Amino acid sequence: MSSEAELEVLGWRDGHIVALDQTALPHEIRMLHLTTVAALVDAIGRLAIRGAPVLGAAGALGVALAARLAERDGWDAARLDAAVKQLAEARPTAVNLRRETEAVAAVIPQGAAAVEAAALATMAATVTASHRMSERGARYLREVCGPAPLRVETHCNTGSLACLGWGSALGVIRALNNDQALAHVLVDETRPLLQGARLTCWELDQLAIEHYLIADAAGPFLIKEGLVDAVVVGADRVAANGDVANKIGTYSLALAARQAGIPFVVVVPESTIDPATPDGRRITVERRAGDEVTHVLGVPVAPDGTRALNYAFDVTPAALVTAVVTEDRVTNPAPRPRTRSHF
Amino acid sequence: MSSEAELEVLGWRDGHIVALDQTALPHEIRMLHLTTVAALVDAIGRLAIRGAPVLGAAGALGVALAARLAERDGWDAARLDAAVKQLAEARPTAVNLRRETEAVAAVIPQGAAAVEAAALATMAATVTASHRMSERGARYLREVCGPAPLRVETHCNTGSLACLGWGSALGVIRALNNDQALAHVLVDETRPLLQGARLTCWELDQLAIEHYLIADAAGPFLIKEGLVDAVVVGADRVAANGDVANKIGTYSLALAARQAGIPFVVVVPESTIDPATPDGRRITVERRAGDEVTHVLGVPVAPDGTRALNYAFDVTPAALVTAVVTEDRVTNPAPRPRTRSHF
Repeated sequence: MSSEAELEVLGWRDGHIVALDQTALPHEIRMLHLTTVAALVDAIGRLAIRGAPVLGAAGALGVALAARLAERDGWDAARLDAAVKQLAEARPTAVNLRRETEAVAAVIPQGAAAVEAAALATMAATVTASHRMSERGARYLREVCGPAPLRVETHCNTGSLACLGWGSALGVIRALNNDQALAHVLVDETRPLLQGARLTCWELDQLAIEHYLIADAAGPFLIKEGLVDAVVVGADRVAANGDVANKIGTYSLALAARQAGIPFVVVVPESTIDPATPDGRRITVERRAGDEVTHVLGVPVAPDGTRALNYAFDVTPAALVTAVVTEDRVTNPAPRPRTRSHF
Repeated sequence: MSSEAELEVLGWRDGHIVALDQTALPHEIRMLHLTTVAALVDAIGRLAIRGAPVLGAAGALGVALAARLAERDGWDAARLDAAVKQLAEARPTAVNLRRETEAVAAVIPQGAAAVEAAALATMAATVTASHRMSERGARYLREVCGPAPLRVETHCNTGSLACLGWGSALGVIRALNNDQALAHVLVDETRPLLQGARLTCWELDQLAIEHYLIADAAGPFLIKEGLVDAVVVGADRVAANGDVANKIGTYSLALAARQAGIPFVVVVPESTIDPATPDGRRITVERRAGDEVTHVLGVPVAPDGTRALNYAFDVTPAALVTAVVTEDRVTNPAPRPRTRSHF
């Protein structure tokens, strides 16, 4: 039943990386076999591998791959350093990629076998953290929202595909469902790349969790209309002051949740909180190619030659965040909303 | 150069209705020849004919068609009444359709020729109103935003295709451009049916007005980031208290505009303001088929069997609306924002 029992999202086999190509879901299951750092960087760049915690694990495995190739083919230190740097910078917004890449790279002086062990330990820790944040987040939501089964809205994909284990925000949803504390999930489609429609609906379907797909622009209005009890999302980076970078569209949900007086909860591993980023203004928001917006799954939706602005992420100010839940703790950057505001 | 010089959006020819099929744009120009009320109702239902003012004109022409068929084929009064009722109810959210249908139906006792004259007068008045609200809205925006060329965000389609003439919100944008007071337009794609991507980009391209397509969920964040000077939209209905029903996604823009301290301006003909609707809670928000969300231009974007919630419109409270501009006046339901709010 569980998707990770069926499918390997990311793994290490015979000295190379295997990864599920997430651009092909839900209509095709395609496995990638990545035997070079360049192939891994390309897969990350085109979002075949995605989700902040999975990117962290992929960075760790990428260093193991580089160390192994360096040992086998006699790379010099400069070449290995360059490969590590290329990996660390493959996606600028998610902090996990840089962090786990650099952490595992610190083991390089101990040899390729030690690097491989460190990378596999990173993978295992990612899974453990997922289960712990899922349970903690579900407990927190039941505490703040009361006992009635919850109608939860989520954005993008934060399940096994993004985080290994149960996921982050989707792990919380899964834990709520296991506790009979979930009514259903509203899934934002998450344009332009439709991770909600393609990936989250697929994971929820595998788990037999009741869900409804909605257009992104409907989310804030359904919140206003009282059809949502809590918004639960993941993040690509949480700054030291609590500002949250996540998939484009997150900000509008946070604004609507504050206006409606419902909780807006961010679920991330500790490794996504970046003390080196003082606030959201210091986060690089990746701008991607315009054709992701002018096309949907390769089909043009605008006149030929239309130019698009494609901000792939947004930054939600800490003041709009009810809580950040990790494997270790619940932090409340802003006072919890107590009453609905009316206008 | 102007699109309405090239294409007939809606017209009356040899006793039947001709209409541009707006579901086929921008990649195909397909004209519909509608010779029965049922065919017109079907075209309205599937959004081949759309846009509140165009729906009003289509309702007027539909009554002319019904009156002509009734005279030719000897319908009894009950059959003619039923046809008028079917027309008036073809789309529940837009008030113009019901209003113009009923206004022209009042002429039925004077015979089919009088009905036809009344319908054509409705068409002409729609065009005149469009030009007047466009000029008035542009003047208003230059007054509240100052002299620098404006970066305007808009949602859905409100140009010639929706309103005849220049349009409503897009007419204001066109008037700003004519006055050299426009920097560029940010066009929300407007999922699920992509009227922004398909229709607004097409109209702006025809008019050689600089524009950039964005994902709907990016709109509120670009407003927060200071990349938008004003949001300008049309509406399907404005209630007596100033609440505004418009395409799903409008509410989130209004919320973000208020938060950022920029104007959120609604441009409509007087016929869209409905004194019989006291407030937004009385407006029926049309829910459409889920496959509009699970598919994009016929291509599935979610796993087979995924269920969707498809609220086609939303209601923005008057308190978030800076001004409603019509052919006759500017009304300010809420005090105009004077300062940016910070959090």
